[in-house]
Amino acid sequence: MEIYPNLINGVLNEDKDVINELMHLTYSVDIATALKGLKNEEILKFYNLVEEKSMADILAKADVVMQARILSVLDYSQIIGLFYYMSNDDVVDILENISIGMRKKLLNLMKKEDTSLIEELLGYDSDSAGGIMTTEYIALSEELTVAEALNKIKDIGPKTELIETIFIVDKQKKLIGTVDLRNILLASSNQQLKSIMRKLLVYVYAGTDQEEVARLVSKYDLKGIPVVNQNEILLGIITVDDIIDVMVEEHMEDILRLGGVSEEENISTTLRTSVKKRLPWLLINLITVFLTAFTIGLFEDIIDQVVVLAVVMPIVLGMAGNAGTQTLSVVIRNISLGEVNLRQNWRLVFKEIFLGGVNGAITGIITSVILYILYGNLYISLIVFISLVGSLVIAGLFGFLIPLVLKLMKADPALASSIFLTTATDVLGALVFLGLARLFLPLLI
Amino acid sequence: MEIYPNLINGVLNEDKDVINELMHLTYSVDIATALKGLKNEEILKFYNLVEEKSMADILAKADVVMQARILSVLDYSQIIGLFYYMSNDDVVDILENISIGMRKKLLNLMKKEDTSLIEELLGYDSDSAGGIMTTEYIALSEELTVAEALNKIKDIGPKTELIETIFIVDKQKKLIGTVDLRNILLASSNQQLKSIMRKLLVYVYAGTDQEEVARLVSKYDLKGIPVVNQNEILLGIITVDDIIDVMVEEHMEDILRLGGVSEEENISTTLRTSVKKRLPWLLINLITVFLTAFTIGLFEDIIDQVVVLAVVMPIVLGMAGNAGTQTLSVVIRNISLGEVNLRQNWRLVFKEIFLGGVNGAITGIITSVILYILYGNLYISLIVFISLVGSLVIAGLFGFLIPLVLKLMKADPALASSIFLTTATDVLGALVFLGLARLFLPLLI
Repeated sequence: MEIYPNLINGVLNEDKDVINELMHLTYSVDIATALKGLKNEEILKFYNLVEEKSMADILAKADVVMQARILSVLDYSQIIGLFYYMSNDDVVDILENISIGMRKKLLNLMKKEDTSLIEELLGYDSDSAGGIMTTEYIALSEELTVAEALNKIKDIGPKTELIETIFIVDKQKKLIGTVDLRNILLASSNQQLKSIMRKLLVYVYAGTDQEEVARLVSKYDLKGIPVVNQNEILLGIITVDDIIDVMVEEHMEDILRLGGVSEEENISTTLRTSVKKRLPWLLINLITVFLTAFTIGLFEDIIDQVVVLAVVMPIVLGMAGNAGTQTLSVVIRNISLGEVNLRQNWRLVFKEIFLGGVNGAITGIITSVILYILYGNLYISLIVFISLVGSLVIAGLFGFLIPLVLKLMKADPALASSIFLTTATDVLGALVFLGLARLFLPLLI
Repeated sequence: MEIYPNLINGVLNEDKDVINELMHLTYSVDIATALKGLKNEEILKFYNLVEEKSMADILAKADVVMQARILSVLDYSQIIGLFYYMSNDDVVDILENISIGMRKKLLNLMKKEDTSLIEELLGYDSDSAGGIMTTEYIALSEELTVAEALNKIKDIGPKTELIETIFIVDKQKKLIGTVDLRNILLASSNQQLKSIMRKLLVYVYAGTDQEEVARLVSKYDLKGIPVVNQNEILLGIITVDDIIDVMVEEHMEDILRLGGVSEEENISTTLRTSVKKRLPWLLINLITVFLTAFTIGLFEDIIDQVVVLAVVMPIVLGMAGNAGTQTLSVVIRNISLGEVNLRQNWRLVFKEIFLGGVNGAITGIITSVILYILYGNLYISLIVFISLVGSLVIAGLFGFLIPLVLKLMKADPALASSIFLTTATDVLGALVFLGLARLFLPLLI
């Protein structure tokens, strides 16, 4: 069904039936998107027409921009009314994105028993396991019988995001195992949970980076992963749908960082913000290109005597840049899959160097033949051939080493690799090419 | 615990107890990784020590290379014995990766009732919803009571990957709704499923691309998504853990394609294969760099007279390339999030053009001041300033248009965009810069 026409129609006529029917037939996330087309006063009207529970769900599913708009039309008591229906991790996500003043006011107005947990969650880094976990999960004692467990599950289940896996804790709330709901359904009702418990556990600490959490959930095909503190006391769980959000976010980050955009930017970002986000990177790049220009400037006299060098040089630098980027992509991808690190895999650098040599030789032969046909100077062709082999070897070496060294230094390889790589291939490529030209100068003129 | 020492110890001593304990204390995926360190005859020994069901799970979780090794040490009847314990989609994944001859032989040796479904699954494109779906799910009639449903779930549940969502079908197996297991647990036992069924449905067709499936599961926070045919008959489901695999795969593809590696390559790929995978892209790039060289060659006489142009030009081309890549990354990311397309968002091109102008002007001023200090020629500075503004505008224009036009033409924007972009920024950047130099020539000498 068309969401927007029904939505605007229901709001303008203040028709609760139309809105209610719409809420039954569509997902909250689609309503949140459709709300973007409404004016602020219409959003307030919509809030007054819809059930609080549904509005809370829409708020939770809305994107950051829309969340801010919804919050801006509501007063504090209305917002807290919505928080009541939301899970703690969703409330925390919202509180993280608003001003400190507003956050403090909202926390002051909330009930004490709710805020202690939320303040604890707010204390975790938003990119860590603690920052994305939910505290609504089912944790039962191993002493419970299956019948008792089922009653607890019926009781708590509707408020939790995961019922397929039940977490088992001891008296100190220390995590000791899991039980699959399938086994609870199949077991006889007086059996104790400990008899069907699986002791094999994959868990993360509250401080674990979300990318590592995603890697574990993906590797072990988990529906949810428990989060514990240093004493293995269960703090919360992370469900697989939150992991998907993490993966989308990390994917976005990787692509943008490789392209030289260090912060998240989407198509609706304002011009002013886009300038702020992209300009710093361009300014760093400016240093790089000046370095290249400076290197070439050292050979100005050579170029002055053999101007064709200036025409041919982009071939060498362009090929080296491309070959380096290929190596870089493969290495960065394997780093984020956790499959490569410098200490264990340093020998692979020889493969990349050799690969650069082979690809350099093949493209070098083609290039020199074409150049010989064009210019008829064997030495130009020879210089280009040697330069292509040399600069593709350099590209392989740096394309391999740069991301791994950055990783070793705990920097994000996706962010800074490409700039170091371009600098290396441009500067060293120009040095090799123009250096050879100086060597062969009498033969070129 | 250390997996490999126990594994090799158990295998060499043919000690079933050691192996059994190992199987209880570790995940199959970790065993599959540890098996890589064994010789082929040791893998066969391991197979003889371990339960068939466990071996089947290890085979399903192993990577493609390891799967091939395990299959190579087993005979056909042993392989079919393992298939019996595996889900259909895992069997299909394996059959897709082996030789056609071996696949035919295995299918011939399997029971007729098993093969019809598997052959149907093999018919789907491996990147489509049909290719990744599983046929092990719970589909019940809306007429069933809650008590009857619970019995069915206990019966079928252990064999299915998803029990939190139960799919409801009519007599023709047409999908009509879903029921949450939480609601089944809470409802009274003689209630009919239709009274607690949710009619709201997100589903995909068997031919839907897996990237679109992942987008829907992510957007709607689903635990699983049903796959139907054109008549909305339920064919299978895709669970969220398979979606995570899809996302890892698509992420890998995007990163590699942006870097100019068109096929999956990992760190252990042989040199020969790496050359085969990367060389074609480098050859295409060779055409691009020759195009740039040709463009510069058109201005050989100008460079001959003002050699400093050859020194300064890399600044202009380098900055344009970087700015274009920034735009490209943002646009490609927004394309794969489904948030931008050319028909609806073409007006945004003006934002990118303007952004290029602003960033070009700022970096242009800095660059011209530095160059004026170095060379003391106002006109060189002026040419560089105009060229930077012009080429960053060109970079914004092409960085925006290229991926969207490719998308419109149903090509993969991540694969081919960067090569077209580099060509555009290099060739047009050189044209603007050297064209201006020709215009101002008398003032430069």
